[in-house]
Amino acid sequence: MPELRKDPITGRWVIIATDRARRPSDFTRVPVVIAEPTRFCPFCYGNEQKTPPEVLAYRVNGGANQPGWSLRVVPNKFPVLGIEGDLNRQGEGMFDKMTGVGAHEVIIESPDHTMTLAQMTDRFVEDVLWAFRERILDLKKDHRLRYILLFKNHGEAAGATLEHTHSQLIALPVIPKRVKEELDGAKLYHDFKERCVYCDIIKQESQAALRLVTETDRFVVIEPYAARFPFETWIVPKRHSSHFEDADAGELQNLAWSLRTTLRKLDKALEKPAYNFVVHTAPVQEPSVPHYHWHIEIMPRLTKVAGFEWGTGFYINPTPPEESAQFLREAGLG
Amino acid sequence: MPELRKDPITGRWVIIATDRARRPSDFTRVPVVIAEPTRFCPFCYGNEQKTPPEVLAYRVNGGANQPGWSLRVVPNKFPVLGIEGDLNRQGEGMFDKMTGVGAHEVIIESPDHTMTLAQMTDRFVEDVLWAFRERILDLKKDHRLRYILLFKNHGEAAGATLEHTHSQLIALPVIPKRVKEELDGAKLYHDFKERCVYCDIIKQESQAALRLVTETDRFVVIEPYAARFPFETWIVPKRHSSHFEDADAGELQNLAWSLRTTLRKLDKALEKPAYNFVVHTAPVQEPSVPHYHWHIEIMPRLTKVAGFEWGTGFYINPTPPEESAQFLREAGLG
Repeated sequence: MPELRKDPITGRWVIIATDRARRPSDFTRVPVVIAEPTRFCPFCYGNEQKTPPEVLAYRVNGGANQPGWSLRVVPNKFPVLGIEGDLNRQGEGMFDKMTGVGAHEVIIESPDHTMTLAQMTDRFVEDVLWAFRERILDLKKDHRLRYILLFKNHGEAAGATLEHTHSQLIALPVIPKRVKEELDGAKLYHDFKERCVYCDIIKQESQAALRLVTETDRFVVIEPYAARFPFETWIVPKRHSSHFEDADAGELQNLAWSLRTTLRKLDKALEKPAYNFVVHTAPVQEPSVPHYHWHIEIMPRLTKVAGFEWGTGFYINPTPPEESAQFLREAGLG
Repeated sequence: MPELRKDPITGRWVIIATDRARRPSDFTRVPVVIAEPTRFCPFCYGNEQKTPPEVLAYRVNGGANQPGWSLRVVPNKFPVLGIEGDLNRQGEGMFDKMTGVGAHEVIIESPDHTMTLAQMTDRFVEDVLWAFRERILDLKKDHRLRYILLFKNHGEAAGATLEHTHSQLIALPVIPKRVKEELDGAKLYHDFKERCVYCDIIKQESQAALRLVTETDRFVVIEPYAARFPFETWIVPKRHSSHFEDADAGELQNLAWSLRTTLRKLDKALEKPAYNFVVHTAPVQEPSVPHYHWHIEIMPRLTKVAGFEWGTGFYINPTPPEESAQFLREAGLG
């Protein structure tokens, strides 16, 4: 019989179809394999002038906006929000709007067009995480910006429009509803238990080990109890902290290993799936809080479409997280 | 400059990219055209024994589970929830679960394999709506069932796995989070204004006409102010009512016309897009409330993937609803 499970943070119920569980081989998809570019790629060496000027770069040699970089952050050429202008809140009859002030940046993770985050060495993955941190610390000085979304779309099926490995940053003058739900849910749990819900999850999952993929000194990698998607995977730091940008050097180093290992396991178990990941972190202008706990959520794109979920907001997951955790534990590194 | 708009019901902010608005021709997609079946179809005449026995049928002739029907409702052969068994709530350490008790039914809207809801005559669309109503009224007698989701996935890109025209019903022992958010948001507005937010929307949109697609005595068809998707369309009854199943015969007749006209306009403007629609209605075991207002939300599947939205829960809509409303007003009937 299928099971209804409740996410302990948001209170969302999901259906876990335990009866006819789908194994990795049941998902049809095209592996994400990136070959040498066949047409112009604005993220490759020599094309630095084709992007807006860089706001951050790690480089071995060369000057700004020249080849020689190992990582480069540039404003998105077609930003969904613009950094200029005043934040102007207005009514339109009963409705509310504001000007689309914010930032939209691209983190080009490697100069190598065929590279993926899973294939990079830990050192370069660590650089990506440092770049995330540096960009947050810089942008949060702008007090108009209340939330910074960091995410990656890997593969066309996950919404990537350019294949050259990159992640994105969108800084917003509002708190996204999904973030607010998580914050509110975690607060409710903390009000009731006087403990952080994520700290409790870490403890229970680390002991039970049923949904544990891997564990280090600093992080647990788990399949969440009420996973919405097959092989949904969370990477959670053991040290309680609400803000990603407060991670220390040891944590970023360890996170690089944990993230890369997880992506390699997913590549191995699921034959290089398209995926999205999102850094879940507290609003940048707010102080550290005892109830929220930053983490990364990875969602492989295994099912061709999300028909039911799209319309209804109700999730049916055909793969119990206990089974996906076992597949990932047993998978080697892709 | 792009605009941030707030949904007046849920409080969700969306980005409306007003600068580089995408027109219907900017979306690449495969038109949903349904030909005669090339392989076995369990929803065609003569294959009635291949589905579970019908729970409802409208028929011109023939006996139960025989050809002669014009509409047929059967339990899903592979249900996500089962109707048997006790509703058993349990803990698993800090987590909460319950047995997956519920119903999952398929409304086969026509015996004609190549038919679509947009192409049917109003009379048969009306029958589909009557079937929705009848199934809700029957299932709500089971007090374990707290919410009934009615939705349609049209086209493979929208998650339809069988092309023969059908919609689906899922009866749940819990209230989906998205529904609860809408109810709570509408309640908050009502507490503040002492008016229904949907009634206010109808009034403003009908007067301003900017986002109005069409209007009848009984319904308005609008592009919502904070639309999440290009050409997202709502059909809202003018008479305040929280429950779909309380619609009267005149309303169902008028809704059939409004729904079919809207689908035909979408077919015309967007070249037969895949789409999802969902009936938004109040929980079946709860009495009528002054703050909630049932309606139908239609979401054409125009963008190939929802990369950003999928991970972040934050929506970017590249087509302002004012423009999509104009396209639909000017579109003939497909």
